Amino acid sequence: MTESPATLDPIANGELPGHRAELGSEAPLRLDSGAVLGPFTIAYQTYGTLNADKSNAILICHALTGDQYPAEQHPVTEKGGWWDLMVGAGKVIDTDRFFVICTNVLGGCMGTTGPSSIDPKTGKPYGLDFPVITIGDMVRAQTMLMDDLGIEKLFCVIGGSMGAMQVLEWASKYGDRLYAAVPIAGAPRHSAQNIAFHEVGRQAIMADPDWCQGNYIPEGKRPRRGLAVARMEAHITYLSEPALHRKFGRRLQEREQVTYGFDADFEVESYLRHQGSTFVERFDANSYLYITRAMDYFDMAAEHDGVLADAFRDTQVRFCVVSFSSDWLYPTVESRTVVHALNAVAANVSFLEVQTDKGHDAFLLDEPVLHETLSGFIDGTVRHSGLSL
Amino acid sequence: MTESPATLDPIANGELPGHRAELGSEAPLRLDSGAVLGPFTIAYQTYGTLNADKSNAILICHALTGDQYPAEQHPVTEKGGWWDLMVGAGKVIDTDRFFVICTNVLGGCMGTTGPSSIDPKTGKPYGLDFPVITIGDMVRAQTMLMDDLGIEKLFCVIGGSMGAMQVLEWASKYGDRLYAAVPIAGAPRHSAQNIAFHEVGRQAIMADPDWCQGNYIPEGKRPRRGLAVARMEAHITYLSEPALHRKFGRRLQEREQVTYGFDADFEVESYLRHQGSTFVERFDANSYLYITRAMDYFDMAAEHDGVLADAFRDTQVRFCVVSFSSDWLYPTVESRTVVHALNAVAANVSFLEVQTDKGHDAFLLDEPVLHETLSGFIDGTVRHSGLSL
Repeated sequence: MTESPATLDPIANGELPGHRAELGSEAPLRLDSGAVLGPFTIAYQTYGTLNADKSNAILICHALTGDQYPAEQHPVTEKGGWWDLMVGAGKVIDTDRFFVICTNVLGGCMGTTGPSSIDPKTGKPYGLDFPVITIGDMVRAQTMLMDDLGIEKLFCVIGGSMGAMQVLEWASKYGDRLYAAVPIAGAPRHSAQNIAFHEVGRQAIMADPDWCQGNYIPEGKRPRRGLAVARMEAHITYLSEPALHRKFGRRLQEREQVTYGFDADFEVESYLRHQGSTFVERFDANSYLYITRAMDYFDMAAEHDGVLADAFRDTQVRFCVVSFSSDWLYPTVESRTVVHALNAVAANVSFLEVQTDKGHDAFLLDEPVLHETLSGFIDGTVRHSGLSL
Repeated sequence: MTESPATLDPIANGELPGHRAELGSEAPLRLDSGAVLGPFTIAYQTYGTLNADKSNAILICHALTGDQYPAEQHPVTEKGGWWDLMVGAGKVIDTDRFFVICTNVLGGCMGTTGPSSIDPKTGKPYGLDFPVITIGDMVRAQTMLMDDLGIEKLFCVIGGSMGAMQVLEWASKYGDRLYAAVPIAGAPRHSAQNIAFHEVGRQAIMADPDWCQGNYIPEGKRPRRGLAVARMEAHITYLSEPALHRKFGRRLQEREQVTYGFDADFEVESYLRHQGSTFVERFDANSYLYITRAMDYFDMAAEHDGVLADAFRDTQVRFCVVSFSSDWLYPTVESRTVVHALNAVAANVSFLEVQTDKGHDAFLLDEPVLHETLSGFIDGTVRHSGLSL
């Protein structure tokens, strides 16, 4: 991997833990939009040890607001890793056995090049001059990192939500570079409702005068209120109505009766305000715009004249597709569409709908059936692959 | 009814069609918060003719952003009435037969006293000095209007969404003042998810610097962008995912391919932006805050130690409860809760779940089963009431 001299880059500066690779210096990344990007940085974190034949690597793809720290204390929030339940020594994704890689996606704000990075042409943050990216671009950048690391074939690519979209993209476009694919709580395309919720979030950000037409960093401002509203709205979609009811119901926030005012009388209001205000401490508003846009543009079938199965024709990848019964953001029907397409090309696919009332965010939570199923799937894939892992 | 001299009131000024009543001059309206309000204005519209014994009146209760113009061209938007399909000569709510009354709710912005009205104490708009109101307060104000009109007993009170909440409140508190109650697409309380969506809308409005802490009218400003975001978010909840898919899918807005930018590439984005921008022309942001708050506070069972049935004990009202199968904002389970409570007190109740994919807004749309059922229910209620209508 290439390590460049210290720059404004927080990984290079040592402000954030983990690794960075500077890629695309010789041949830039050709984006789906037609624009080119290079050189660019991919920030990533690893756990475990890469074996001699480089066959034990698992790539974890993160969701919209995730990052490259699934299995350690978060350097900004100081909370646990977002997938601590899944990743670690002796866990489902066993870091004693596998070399686990997680990259911050292209367009992100945790060290990978994104709209808050310095544009080498101007010496200022890209802002809206950053090219619009796609899920395909994120994955293409990840393949360049694998090249840089000398990993020809990943044992598994796994991820939830937007991570699942990256998994599907990997399996479709680079099927010879992975043995197994685990898309969890995902979809093969963004629905009208998905786009609609994202558009409201973007409008909330862009309505904030402190967004400064995307130029807030040089202006010394941040669109905190708009980004918080976007996060609050999105957060509702990550939970099911029964989960919200169980967690909060109509319980009042540290008071005996309603105040007849606009304070956060209800616990659910207080919770959402907290979600909004903490999010802005760790996330960049323009990254939110770019990454939501990448998700909206995702439509695997459209690249194959509407025939999703053609995205996976002749695939040798083993799939484990997972959905959650109460996920209304990417409901089970979306995962079933993927499974049907895989069946149509006689792919090797397992499908699990986890019965839970926890909604979309269940992929981050303690769901024993999910964990048992994935353990079995990983063991089975090891056996079938003939690898000595 | 009392007609006062011309004021800043748009009904009194002749700017808006319809009637106004000035109420609470002698005895003010005692609000659930403990505050008192009076005198205050109720703006209302009527269709048809009140019969000699004043027994043919139907009160229509409007939804969050509705108004007193269900059956005529809207004076601001110049679009048709919001319930033209239901109300008119020869229609389900037959204005040849019934005297139809529709009031703008307390806290509204179409002539009824609300936060944009002039506070007589200061000579300036109330803004946030307007007292927080409840669904109970809205209905109490309507009963005062009925007193003013000399109508002792309504033939029917009917409404969808927030209108259904008012209907339930009428039946519970003033059961001897109506023969029939038709709550459509409603709920006996606001769920955590309902509160959550409203809170995001309020935060979007209050995040807009042009909201001016609620004081935007004297400042010569309007929080247009914040209110538009609130409307966009709410609008998603009024439609089902299948309806959004059928109406828009992933179709592009007047272009052959995506632009790789933040314009409204997708029809659904363009539609939502239009919904937001037109809404702010006809609705007051502070009214949006107050009315959403009234809905959040609605919880009929809570007033009866958690036993919803006690809200209807010994009722003589005939009920027709209606829900829509694809309504995820106020899903069928909420209407069933009402029906079970009514069954528990041996009330006369019909229940209809309309099978439709149109979502919550189906109550405004062409749903033949709904219309047929309501026609039958109205005819049956006329027969059972012994009235000559």
